[in-house]
Amino acid sequence: MPRQPTPLRTDLGWSAADRVVVRGKDLPGELLGKINLGDMAFLELMGRVPTAQESTVFNAVLVTLVEHGVTPSALAARLTYAGAPESLQAAVAAGLCGLGSVFVGSTEGVAKMLSEALPRERARTATPAELDTIAREAVAAWRARSKAPFPGLGHPIHKPVDPRTARLFEIARANGFAGGYVELVQRIAAEAARVSGRTLPLNATGAIGAICCELGVPERVVRGLGVMARAVGLVAHLLEETEHPMALEIWRRIDAEATAHARPQHD
Amino acid sequence: MPRQPTPLRTDLGWSAADRVVVRGKDLPGELLGKINLGDMAFLELMGRVPTAQESTVFNAVLVTLVEHGVTPSALAARLTYAGAPESLQAAVAAGLCGLGSVFVGSTEGVAKMLSEALPRERARTATPAELDTIAREAVAAWRARSKAPFPGLGHPIHKPVDPRTARLFEIARANGFAGGYVELVQRIAAEAARVSGRTLPLNATGAIGAICCELGVPERVVRGLGVMARAVGLVAHLLEETEHPMALEIWRRIDAEATAHARPQHD
Amino acid sequence: MPRQPTPLRTDLGWSAADRVVVRGKDLPGELLGKINLGDMAFLELMGRVPTAQESTVFNAVLVTLVEHGVTPSALAARLTYAGAPESLQAAVAAGLCGLGSVFVGSTEGVAKMLSEALPRERARTATPAELDTIAREAVAAWRARSKAPFPGLGHPIHKPVDPRTARLFEIARANGFAGGYVELVQRIAAEAARVSGRTLPLNATGAIGAICCELGVPERVVRGLGVMARAVGLVAHLLEETEHPMALEIWRRIDAEATAHARPQHD
Amino acid sequence: MPRQPTPLRTDLGWSAADRVVVRGKDLPGELLGKINLGDMAFLELMGRVPTAQESTVFNAVLVTLVEHGVTPSALAARLTYAGAPESLQAAVAAGLCGLGSVFVGSTEGVAKMLSEALPRERARTATPAELDTIAREAVAAWRARSKAPFPGLGHPIHKPVDPRTARLFEIARANGFAGGYVELVQRIAAEAARVSGRTLPLNATGAIGAICCELGVPERVVRGLGVMARAVGLVAHLLEETEHPMALEIWRRIDAEATAHARPQHD
Repeated sequence: MPRQPTPLRTDLGWSAADRVVVRGKDLPGELLGKINLGDMAFLELMGRVPTAQESTVFNAVLVTLVEHGVTPSALAARLTYAGAPESLQAAVAAGLCGLGSVFVGSTEGVAKMLSEALPRERARTATPAELDTIAREAVAAWRARSKAPFPGLGHPIHKPVDPRTARLFEIARANGFAGGYVELVQRIAAEAARVSGRTLPLNATGAIGAICCELGVPERVVRGLGVMARAVGLVAHLLEETEHPMALEIWRRIDAEATAHARPQHD
Repeated sequence: MPRQPTPLRTDLGWSAADRVVVRGKDLPGELLGKINLGDMAFLELMGRVPTAQESTVFNAVLVTLVEHGVTPSALAARLTYAGAPESLQAAVAAGLCGLGSVFVGSTEGVAKMLSEALPRERARTATPAELDTIAREAVAAWRARSKAPFPGLGHPIHKPVDPRTARLFEIARANGFAGGYVELVQRIAAEAARVSGRTLPLNATGAIGAICCELGVPERVVRGLGVMARAVGLVAHLLEETEHPMALEIWRRIDAEATAHARPQHD
Repeated sequence: MPRQPTPLRTDLGWSAADRVVVRGKDLPGELLGKINLGDMAFLELMGRVPTAQESTVFNAVLVTLVEHGVTPSALAARLTYAGAPESLQAAVAAGLCGLGSVFVGSTEGVAKMLSEALPRERARTATPAELDTIAREAVAAWRARSKAPFPGLGHPIHKPVDPRTARLFEIARANGFAGGYVELVQRIAAEAARVSGRTLPLNATGAIGAICCELGVPERVVRGLGVMARAVGLVAHLLEETEHPMALEIWRRIDAEATAHARPQHD
Repeated sequence: MPRQPTPLRTDLGWSAADRVVVRGKDLPGELLGKINLGDMAFLELMGRVPTAQESTVFNAVLVTLVEHGVTPSALAARLTYAGAPESLQAAVAAGLCGLGSVFVGSTEGVAKMLSEALPRERARTATPAELDTIAREAVAAWRARSKAPFPGLGHPIHKPVDPRTARLFEIARANGFAGGYVELVQRIAAEAARVSGRTLPLNATGAIGAICCELGVPERVVRGLGVMARAVGLVAHLLEETEHPMALEIWRRIDAEATAHARPQHD
């Protein structure tokens, strides 16, 4: 019996001779000139234009993730561009490939941990005492399950506090998005610090994971916010690489040092 | 004589324990909550925050490039995600790799053609008659040099006009960015249609190329605006793929059809 | 106190004006014309040229992984090439990005499971009865830990047996590489079928995972064998795409079908 | 009128329950255990198994391209892996994205130049005097058209001769593949050196471009040989990165140096 084909369907957009429609809205007439890139990202993911409060909070999250200096991701993009300057898009792609479990991906880990610990319907009603209990249980469960560091906690540079975290929470609070998840993640940070006996600042990815839960961004694309934001930053790195290149110099230095032990000695 | 190392330098950003600085601005204090993602992209590329007019025009350009439905780029991202759902970032990267000479890259071709034909210092002062001459020369030069289609002209779907072009120029005009380049690209489109005897609508990439020249975006990263905008759209496609998957169904259909001729006949 | 730099070192290769050295061997004099690509891969990973037996087994593993028809990975590469034909390397890269947990990555899962269950030093001495016990424990441990399907077992097409598995084991046996891991993986397959009550053929990735353990390929790069082999296959798909293109046709079909529900009805 | 669908077709391979067929050959029965990875690549691209002579020459070309030490491509792969160690495939992909016009892509440029200058049917019959003329014309045409350096000539390290070139030509000669293209490329190198007044050694990519023309590899996938070979080398770099990591150390060093000018001075 032949296989029955499954129907294919997208609700993101379609075009005809005189129309371009995105998420049900006429792109030229309803969106261009009226919406910024961050709000467009919200529309794409959530299916509706954000409120003014959502726009402020969502854009703050995205802006946090754009530029972190010469990261491994930025270096990978620059080194790729040096070999294929005709393919700027592939250099950005190379830079994005490294946004995995070690760096940007931790936003997703935080969002998953929080949304499993605190169901969405309880996030508005949980009392402080209940949140304390949930935090204790979440920390104990994580430690029972994994030796990996807690997602969203600790930072190699930003100690004892991550300056972005406080500001992101301030923006969330001023716009009505500092609810149960923002409360919970701070309790988890405190409890994790207590049981581990270490200073564990809640870093920006921890704050972002919690705020994404508040906004209702599905956990499985929380990492995607970092990906889209970093794409912006990587284009800027490639522009700077055309003006002040560093890729070939890095190559020469590393190659010389890393192979010196193998080369015949000069007299 | 040993090679002298070239110094390495970035002006995009740096971090210390209690600071995160991007383009000379304190990220938490001066940017978060005050700037949207599109304006952040402008700051990264141009080194300063845009004016309100620049912000409107620049965001309109970016928003135009986010979502074009189930393009080859979106399909590549979805098919990649089906094999490696743990690496959303690599699926976005795969989708970006195809934004080359055939699709999004034409914005860059337009910007290069325009900025070569009309030096920036003359763009504000050139008379209509001068622009007519430049357009004729640019079209003749292109045809002498290449059999490739004109960048920014013609569209497989949007005929006889691309609905995004008129709206983008309207937004540019309302904000003071419909100068010499916007004038010139329209003259080039008319001249190219005249000499080729074909209907050649100025498509959205043509409009965007011209507007980027008006804004002063360096030509070599004009393609980068499409890359960053499409990264937004690709994340949305991957979210939809988790909800209404199409990748595996496409695979099964194509495989069955494309290999049918080689398979032994069933009785 | 300033950070002390860690020294950088590679043992893979170095070049000087008149020398190219790979893994301690003079490339022109000792390798070119004397070694095939599969043996070069073995040399790169294992630090020595393979024996004739190792060469046969290792190349058989790689050859198995080259070509699987129009897979999602091949489709992603073709769709990418359609947009950026000037960047063949980026189209191959896009195709590789999907070789994750769902498809090729399962070879790595098998190798990890086997090498955890059966330490290398015991693989040569374990008795059949001991292997039976290890298999029962490995299956029980997997089921206790995860609801995911067993790595290396089951196949959507190749039922009730995967024709590649028997042949790979035959080659391994003929060359002295059908030891404890090859025995164990077959016992695990039988035990998993017994406890699940389903037909679970040991597929090619299961056989490859076991053979990699026999060869001593470190588990963390077992997936890499699939990546390098598939790179070969993807180049062939891109060559065929230039001769008999399918990418744009796929795009048109999918776009028309997936957006039909959203378009205004024609009368 | 609705669009007529174009039929889709592949001749690379297909699978059924008990069959896996690649290029018309039964994979388990006719290929596994009988063919090495390089010959499989030849089969995939050329549609037939190579002769012993073709196998030696083709594998020599591929082996030349596997490992060049800590290149920008290898560094991009390592930096990517540091951020996403769970996605080895994406780290290889990142490394491949840089194999563009500057590095490996030049093999393709050479093959295109040679096959345009010397049609395949004349390659076997052209006399030395005719080849001299063709070389002079090819050099003049290149200089008239482009200020870019000649593809395949000159090398930053290998001076005055590239040790791989002589060996590759020796292997080609011993196997009957040192015909018109190998003759022509050497004449072009000599002529280019003469008119430029510089030492311009024919580098390995020049030799490979010529040998690919001899073997009949289509020019548009000549770059693909470098891509598949480098995929092998990049997996080895990632394995070494797990044993002797350099990515994070490189990041720390570069970040410290490149941002030092922007940081407040310590007293």
